Amino acid sequence: MKFSRLFIPTTKETPSDAALPSHQFLIRAGFINQQGSGLYNFLPLGKIVLDKIRSIVKEELDNAGCNEVQLSFVTPIGLWDKSGRADTMGKEMLRIQDRHENDFVLSPTNEEAMVELVKNRVKSYKELPVNLYQINTKFRDEARPRYGLLRGREFLMKDGYSFHANKEDMNREFNLMEETYKKIFTRLGLDFRVVDADSGAIGGTGSKEFHVLANSGEDTILVCEDCEYGANIETIFEDEKEVVSLNELSYEQLQEKDVEHKCSCGGKLSFKKGIEVGHIFQLGDKYSKALEAIFQDENGKPKAFEMATFGIGVSRLVASVIEQNHDENGCIWTKATTPYMVDVIVSNAKKENELNAGTKIYEDLKQIGISSILDDRKEKKHTYGFKMGDFKLIGFPYAIIVGKKLQDGLVEIIDRRTLEAQDVKLEDVVSKLKELIS
Amino acid sequence: MKFSRLFIPTTKETPSDAALPSHQFLIRAGFINQQGSGLYNFLPLGKIVLDKIRSIVKEELDNAGCNEVQLSFVTPIGLWDKSGRADTMGKEMLRIQDRHENDFVLSPTNEEAMVELVKNRVKSYKELPVNLYQINTKFRDEARPRYGLLRGREFLMKDGYSFHANKEDMNREFNLMEETYKKIFTRLGLDFRVVDADSGAIGGTGSKEFHVLANSGEDTILVCEDCEYGANIETIFEDEKEVVSLNELSYEQLQEKDVEHKCSCGGKLSFKKGIEVGHIFQLGDKYSKALEAIFQDENGKPKAFEMATFGIGVSRLVASVIEQNHDENGCIWTKATTPYMVDVIVSNAKKENELNAGTKIYEDLKQIGISSILDDRKEKKHTYGFKMGDFKLIGFPYAIIVGKKLQDGLVEIIDRRTLEAQDVKLEDVVSKLKELIS
Repeated sequence: MKFSRLFIPTTKETPSDAALPSHQFLIRAGFINQQGSGLYNFLPLGKIVLDKIRSIVKEELDNAGCNEVQLSFVTPIGLWDKSGRADTMGKEMLRIQDRHENDFVLSPTNEEAMVELVKNRVKSYKELPVNLYQINTKFRDEARPRYGLLRGREFLMKDGYSFHANKEDMNREFNLMEETYKKIFTRLGLDFRVVDADSGAIGGTGSKEFHVLANSGEDTILVCEDCEYGANIETIFEDEKEVVSLNELSYEQLQEKDVEHKCSCGGKLSFKKGIEVGHIFQLGDKYSKALEAIFQDENGKPKAFEMATFGIGVSRLVASVIEQNHDENGCIWTKATTPYMVDVIVSNAKKENELNAGTKIYEDLKQIGISSILDDRKEKKHTYGFKMGDFKLIGFPYAIIVGKKLQDGLVEIIDRRTLEAQDVKLEDVVSKLKELIS
Repeated sequence: MKFSRLFIPTTKETPSDAALPSHQFLIRAGFINQQGSGLYNFLPLGKIVLDKIRSIVKEELDNAGCNEVQLSFVTPIGLWDKSGRADTMGKEMLRIQDRHENDFVLSPTNEEAMVELVKNRVKSYKELPVNLYQINTKFRDEARPRYGLLRGREFLMKDGYSFHANKEDMNREFNLMEETYKKIFTRLGLDFRVVDADSGAIGGTGSKEFHVLANSGEDTILVCEDCEYGANIETIFEDEKEVVSLNELSYEQLQEKDVEHKCSCGGKLSFKKGIEVGHIFQLGDKYSKALEAIFQDENGKPKAFEMATFGIGVSRLVASVIEQNHDENGCIWTKATTPYMVDVIVSNAKKENELNAGTKIYEDLKQIGISSILDDRKEKKHTYGFKMGDFKLIGFPYAIIVGKKLQDGLVEIIDRRTLEAQDVKLEDVVSKLKELIS
């Protein structure tokens, strides 16, 4: 892709309400813009990142045997009456009326609709298990939308629902989804922890959250320094006030606190800040019973489905990558999430030799399957400094600078994370990059 | 994919309100189900078809230089106040209120939001043209939702908006989009016509519709039998009553009517029924003026953007393919839109030799990049007849029958459109299919 053909409105202005790096940089670098309170548009670069995350999520879920569907976003209130959630969901579930004054809801989640879909269509234990998911718009009417994509009102969520003949099979799927989620977050290049979120059971497996570690995270979690164990603080501290006050502490403040609890492995537990990007949850037969969704079991008897539910905050992940990966200059995308791997910067695109050399590198990279963007912009304001500023702000993993050193047969490769530059011979640059990326 | 691992709830029951083949068959074959009036869920097979269409649309638009974005579906009413459409859009535009009693709209289209997005971000003629599109949920609160996906309330639409420095450049883009749309509908395997929809101009190019020809189509159009010309009847008949009554006639009734008008090429015009699946429209500066969206022109003077808008009914296309391609047994997908190219039917999956031979064919097809689904179902009800019924109802282009003829080293290939069967040697079946498909 050529820079000059992509709508990338970078800006120096930071929105006044943007406190977090991801909120500031995603807007300044032209990934998103705000449409209204808690409502965001994805601009071309943001859309590419969103689609990359979406497709990794889809690929791993499909590999694990899940089936993708797409439910209507507007759902009749009747569905929510049946489960009782019309009364209990509170104001986050936005109710609307159509022209005939019938009541509907902007889906905040879709347990009821999924149960209704499977009900009467899966009739025997022989047709189980079924795991259906969608990656679709959700709406939650937050009282105070904030932090950009992290706590918006309209957002993109992967929500999955599995149906089983018995608890054992549901447990099997729950574990499979935990492993699948780990694969997804690992592929995305994120530093994350799986965290027990089930205060009921000791070492409980009924509810687990996936947190991206980031100092700016909203949640305080405990992680073991020696093993993989992590826990939601609600599961460790019984006193509600203590939980609230711990959640309000900053990362720096938390580091000064000693943790008296030990991990069951004997290791030291310490406080971290996390962003919840996934949650898997054993539902049992709560919804299937409420909605009378039954199948014939092995003995020919009617039984309500055992269910589990699995969520990933897909648009929230866009921001989470940046909360974990940024510096004072802007975004630093991971290799799996970056819109393009390499920014080929033609220092002065009015100079034919520079533009030609840059274009050739861009074409050669395409040839070997490395995605790149050619910064071919040539207006007066598009100086080398301007282009470097955009590179740092947008955060492609690498830049290749095609500039004055060309007369010595050299270009520069810059690593976005370290900002270290190295001179490379023009003829070696593509193979050098291939080596760096792999 | 294996049939046994995909949620495909086929049924013999036809919904009572389903008058059209696509509505009946898409529900009976397990592609979609109804969530509420004008609200549909896409089940796994339906989601695959929707994504296939979506990706062809995206590919051709990206090739033509358009940039994909994704705007928020819920939009503040303020946007619509600025253009005046808050007052003029009528009840199809559904207004909602959030918990703070602020007014919003479920986007029925997005001219205003796109203009706001480009405003102040594209400042000079040097940054033009820009063509932004999205493939996103829309909502129109139809008084009488009907015909399944053809006239639903929530639907998936591609809406594109282009911004230009002058009318000439807008015209150029308009023509480019006409060509791009033709490529899209051709790739989808559809028999379609581009139709003049601009009653103002003779041979007008300001507004064109793309109609899939289908006897069940809602619109009556005129097409030339000798050239490519087609027209919306509103552009030919001046009397409104005549237009209304022509639109109400069935395809059969229309064939009995003579057309007095001649095509400008001298050819005979005849009536057809069409489903509108695309519309391209020259907007001029109506919205950019209303929203004060200006740029600096070549003379340094402020000027409102010249705009055009381009729509495709993506979810409507799913139904349109079937309106044009079906028989009394069910759907007949085109090669570009089918969820899988081949249905490998294991006649009796309890017989090891049949299951093994079917599985091998399935694996061999995968090897050479032909998508297939293996009907490996083995319950009592899954007879050969049952599986053939599903094949005809779902409408994969080809089936391979692995059954009794296996003892003579033969399998059968069935063409879904003609239902003709041919015996093929087991070892030749993959190459034979490759030949048929290409």
